[in-house]
Amino acid sequence: AKKACLKVWNFLKKAWELGADEPRKVVHCLKVGIALTIVSLFYYMRPLYEGVGGNAMWAIMTVVVIFEYTVGATVSKCLNRATGTFLAGFLAVGVHWIANQSGENFEPIIVGVSVFLLASAATFSRFIPVIKARFDYGAMIFILTFSLVSISGYRVEKLFNMAHQRLSTIIIGTSICILISVLVCPIWAGEELYHLIIRNMNKLENSLDCCVAQYFNNTDINEETEKKLEGYKCVLNSEATEESMAGFARWEPAHGRFSFQHPWNQYLKIGASMRNCAYCIEALNSCVISENQAPEFIKKRLSDLCFRVNTNSSSVIRELAMKIKTMRKSTKLDVLVEEMNIAVEELRNDLKSLPGLLISPPKSPENDKGEPILTTSSTTTVPLVEVIPLGTFASLLIEIAARVEA
Amino acid sequence: AKKACLKVWNFLKKAWELGADEPRKVVHCLKVGIALTIVSLFYYMRPLYEGVGGNAMWAIMTVVVIFEYTVGATVSKCLNRATGTFLAGFLAVGVHWIANQSGENFEPIIVGVSVFLLASAATFSRFIPVIKARFDYGAMIFILTFSLVSISGYRVEKLFNMAHQRLSTIIIGTSICILISVLVCPIWAGEELYHLIIRNMNKLENSLDCCVAQYFNNTDINEETEKKLEGYKCVLNSEATEESMAGFARWEPAHGRFSFQHPWNQYLKIGASMRNCAYCIEALNSCVISENQAPEFIKKRLSDLCFRVNTNSSSVIRELAMKIKTMRKSTKLDVLVEEMNIAVEELRNDLKSLPGLLISPPKSPENDKGEPILTTSSTTTVPLVEVIPLGTFASLLIEIAARVEA
Repeated sequence: AKKACLKVWNFLKKAWELGADEPRKVVHCLKVGIALTIVSLFYYMRPLYEGVGGNAMWAIMTVVVIFEYTVGATVSKCLNRATGTFLAGFLAVGVHWIANQSGENFEPIIVGVSVFLLASAATFSRFIPVIKARFDYGAMIFILTFSLVSISGYRVEKLFNMAHQRLSTIIIGTSICILISVLVCPIWAGEELYHLIIRNMNKLENSLDCCVAQYFNNTDINEETEKKLEGYKCVLNSEATEESMAGFARWEPAHGRFSFQHPWNQYLKIGASMRNCAYCIEALNSCVISENQAPEFIKKRLSDLCFRVNTNSSSVIRELAMKIKTMRKSTKLDVLVEEMNIAVEELRNDLKSLPGLLISPPKSPENDKGEPILTTSSTTTVPLVEVIPLGTFASLLIEIAARVEA
Repeated sequence: AKKACLKVWNFLKKAWELGADEPRKVVHCLKVGIALTIVSLFYYMRPLYEGVGGNAMWAIMTVVVIFEYTVGATVSKCLNRATGTFLAGFLAVGVHWIANQSGENFEPIIVGVSVFLLASAATFSRFIPVIKARFDYGAMIFILTFSLVSISGYRVEKLFNMAHQRLSTIIIGTSICILISVLVCPIWAGEELYHLIIRNMNKLENSLDCCVAQYFNNTDINEETEKKLEGYKCVLNSEATEESMAGFARWEPAHGRFSFQHPWNQYLKIGASMRNCAYCIEALNSCVISENQAPEFIKKRLSDLCFRVNTNSSSVIRELAMKIKTMRKSTKLDVLVEEMNIAVEELRNDLKSLPGLLISPPKSPENDKGEPILTTSSTTTVPLVEVIPLGTFASLLIEIAARVEA
């Protein structure tokens, strides 16, 4: 029993930390609570409507299902739901009319066949990538509404009346959702994406700095540097988030510094470039933790230039992050890129002179276990050669970013 | 008009290709159609039940919302829905009873506050990773049912009767879903995961082969090799799929060669190792497309050993794939790993003798644009040094895989 208590306590503590870390999530929860309470009491207080079956239900269901974390997601679900319901209702009434005309024997057959065909087709459409990305929810609602209307048409004679009622309740639910999500502490998918990209850039920069410092200084890895070092993994894993955010951001109205048709796709391109950089850092990182290390004298010789390349690329990334943050053209950027390229060039030249150095190593490189380790040339050059594509990627990044707010 | 026609035609063609590529998706669509038709006609034919509001709706809704592509996903949604509905119904009846006892004035307040609190709490719980992964849908259903029952309690006096009816319709819907998804051409999440892992292993092997061959032969890249070369990108992107599959596979009953508690987590570990290898191949690949190439004579000297390392690691990966496929212990595996390690060792030794070679390059390496290119030592060694961690990763992979079906 004590163990179970401890488990529950730990769980609650974690939940509390989550809430304290991201207060906006708590705000979102309160928003959902408010929206639901309003809808519930709205129907609770009005004795005009008959019991549960009819209408109140649809409004509540709409609120529960549609209310999402960001404004964009909520709007996109609202539109999906409205379109799906409308289309399906329209079709179902049509099928119902045909079935009615063709006599009592054929009626169930026509209804059955139409449900079968349309449900299969709509389910299939959900596998098509374009539709899956934008209209997945709409297709589901389409199937649901179509089946409901086509079988209920038989019993409820006032089909249009029902459709009218259902639509009105959905409109009530939808508008409450949209109003609350826009008016009460709105969380914009676009803004989230923007902050995510900037945060990832900073992480990338920190990772790169740590990685190079680690390689040349061989300091002990404490928890903080470890955390910074691992920052690039966030960049690797954020592809799905970025894509869904950009998808939702498209539905959002103008807000803050973002216009309605802000070029969200550019953010995805920046994200992709950052992932390319992160792959490089991953490779660099594997050099840092590798057992085969170059001897100190080679490292020392190259460390200055490596640090320069590193500092330059970092400041390019930082400047890019600033540029995206302020959405202004940066005059310093070109200079920084130029400097970075010069540093890379120097490093290349220095590498050229290395083979000459290597014929007279002070001692044959063998580690204490007697295992042969790699010759200096190969081990030292790895991180350097890695730094170079990093420079290349960084300049790629620049080119793309230059297009964003041109 | 012609343009629009062409667009529609292209869309249909793409959809047709998708269906032809993966006939099981089409089968899934037909299964959904069948399930919905059965439920629809079931209620259409029975005049015992009153109109739409009451019950038929819930069965249809259950089928539409719950029927998923794999058996595991369907079962997990069924359990979620049942648990969520039951818990929420139970709580709502309790709250309703308390509200009833406390007089007419307090009733709406108690209902409102309880809806607000529980909806907020349940929404918050959906942000907690553990719950999000497994019980996201259950939490949503909990909110929905609780709100519905607590406001409907006011009108429908026969609350228990309603609960009974709703539960029975949900059970009908759920059982139809599970029966059809298990009996008609079942698609098991576990089996999908298993095939995905094996397919990815083969892609990884092909990518590696192509990459090394490309580097040393410099043949033109035609479409087929291009496709093989890019295979590792699939491995990089399949993390999310693997995780959701493994999550669903846990709910599946024993089927085929898989028992109920098959160690699905091991597949995730293998997937993670494969992603590590894919990062290496990404780095290798950037060497292949790089402008800085080592001179031919160095490449030739090393190509034999590189190919040996490559062939050995490829056959280790192939053997591993076989091992996972047949789920047997492989006797050959240890021998292959041994061979691979020997080849890696030889390559290392050969690299050691390189610096001596480099002092007398036949001509100063400058490409035709006059730009200085990297010295041979750095450029040649890159792919080799990259091959070595690849070997390391491959042996890591082995260790993990060895644990799977031990």
